[in-house]
Amino acid sequence: MGRVTVRRPVVRIRDGVVTRRPDTLAAEEPMEIRVGGRPLTITMRTPGDDFDLACGFLVGEGVVRAAGEVAAIRYCAGATDDGSNTYNVVDVALAAGVAPPDASLERNFYTTSACGLCGKASLDAVRTVAPWSVAEDPLRISPKELAQLPEALRAAQRVFDATGGLHAAGLFSAAGELLCLREDVGRHNAVDKVVGHALREGLLPLRGSVLMVSGRASFELVQKAVMAGIPLLAAVSAPSSLAADLAQESGMTLVGFLRGESMNVYTGAERIS
Amino acid sequence: MGRVTVRRPVVRIRDGVVTRRPDTLAAEEPMEIRVGGRPLTITMRTPGDDFDLACGFLVGEGVVRAAGEVAAIRYCAGATDDGSNTYNVVDVALAAGVAPPDASLERNFYTTSACGLCGKASLDAVRTVAPWSVAEDPLRISPKELAQLPEALRAAQRVFDATGGLHAAGLFSAAGELLCLREDVGRHNAVDKVVGHALREGLLPLRGSVLMVSGRASFELVQKAVMAGIPLLAAVSAPSSLAADLAQESGMTLVGFLRGESMNVYTGAERIS
Repeated sequence: MGRVTVRRPVVRIRDGVVTRRPDTLAAEEPMEIRVGGRPLTITMRTPGDDFDLACGFLVGEGVVRAAGEVAAIRYCAGATDDGSNTYNVVDVALAAGVAPPDASLERNFYTTSACGLCGKASLDAVRTVAPWSVAEDPLRISPKELAQLPEALRAAQRVFDATGGLHAAGLFSAAGELLCLREDVGRHNAVDKVVGHALREGLLPLRGSVLMVSGRASFELVQKAVMAGIPLLAAVSAPSSLAADLAQESGMTLVGFLRGESMNVYTGAERIS
Repeated sequence: MGRVTVRRPVVRIRDGVVTRRPDTLAAEEPMEIRVGGRPLTITMRTPGDDFDLACGFLVGEGVVRAAGEVAAIRYCAGATDDGSNTYNVVDVALAAGVAPPDASLERNFYTTSACGLCGKASLDAVRTVAPWSVAEDPLRISPKELAQLPEALRAAQRVFDATGGLHAAGLFSAAGELLCLREDVGRHNAVDKVVGHALREGLLPLRGSVLMVSGRASFELVQKAVMAGIPLLAAVSAPSSLAADLAQESGMTLVGFLRGESMNVYTGAERIS
């Protein structure tokens, strides 16, 4: 029920010394996203910002792209046998005229799996559904400005220091201002929560913005950034090959190993001035 | 096809100095797992050990638990429009009498989602499908022995040093011998590959063994370890609340923040002697 952390006893061993004390863990609970009452997906997430999570997931899937396309969001009561509300089932009602997502197997896993199931087909699938292009985004940012972001993200992460168990995603303006921070046991959920927040605030597409993530950059994260119209994704750690391929094809700037003023720019280096 | 890494050009910025050079990225490609020709799931994975990945996934889902329950495994040709083989679609033929998995939405995401969709229900679901118990496993291991594992895992990781982009899962004997190492952009895939290898070698349940993972420990990883009969899961980083809950309920030992001789023992501390 919105608990972000959970306390439980732990046996700590430090150089042979054993102590027992309470420890703080990142909370993880399943959440089902329904659209118009129909189950669409289940994700293991950290409770909190669940409506943002649901909306951001739907942006990533190409179902919605503006706040007005979501008519209502609510927790479903009665999802359990005893009829109680676990706050783990969220139902999104789409506005009239918005096509519901395809709930078939292919659609449920990746937007990308509709065709030949290879890297190239995955890239094509994102291009097909993306409602806007990030290629022409005039964002320019200096290495010095980028170098501030990891520390700004860490400073704003309230939960990580306590648990060490949460991924963070932070949305920044080109001036380095933190617009939105979300944390989750799943990095894709953290990004969905940021994007969902932006959708509900009427901010899509997120032109001129920078998305910073605490871990690695996978294809899935680049896909979510493309679908939100974000022209620059920066990660503390490494990108995958397909993440770089999608960033390249989308005209997005992809920065990895962003640590202080050291970084690798995989694609779109013209935006780093 | 089977490439674990991909080379691509990168712009490196180090203290204001810009250089262009090739970099090595962890490969990521989609893979679809079919059972008897029917699509079951799609995962973004690092190519390689794909048959192990498919088998391990099916162990985690409770579909198979012995090598003889798998009749055949093959890459599907003709998965693309032009009929070529992308080596990204794997079809598993089950032996006669083995019930195929439920390919419904609920089943496809989590074994856990059949019932009330809350943490407790998730734990119950694993207990229902687990073919063996790890609670009575007599494994005993000292902190000194556990302290060796992260370094052994790192030493055996051939790809990580080059890309920084892969998760590792290593299966160790109680004596600290590395039995199997697998790497993947997805940590769940790395664990599936280890478990699938063990299945195909006739080693399930993996009594007396230790599974070490390079990152965090989620519910999903504990679930996969339980389904493989592994009595001890150790992670370099933090577990989630539901991971600790499932380990507790299953009688598994869960160690987190394993770094040198420092570690946190969340459950099953009696095995750490």
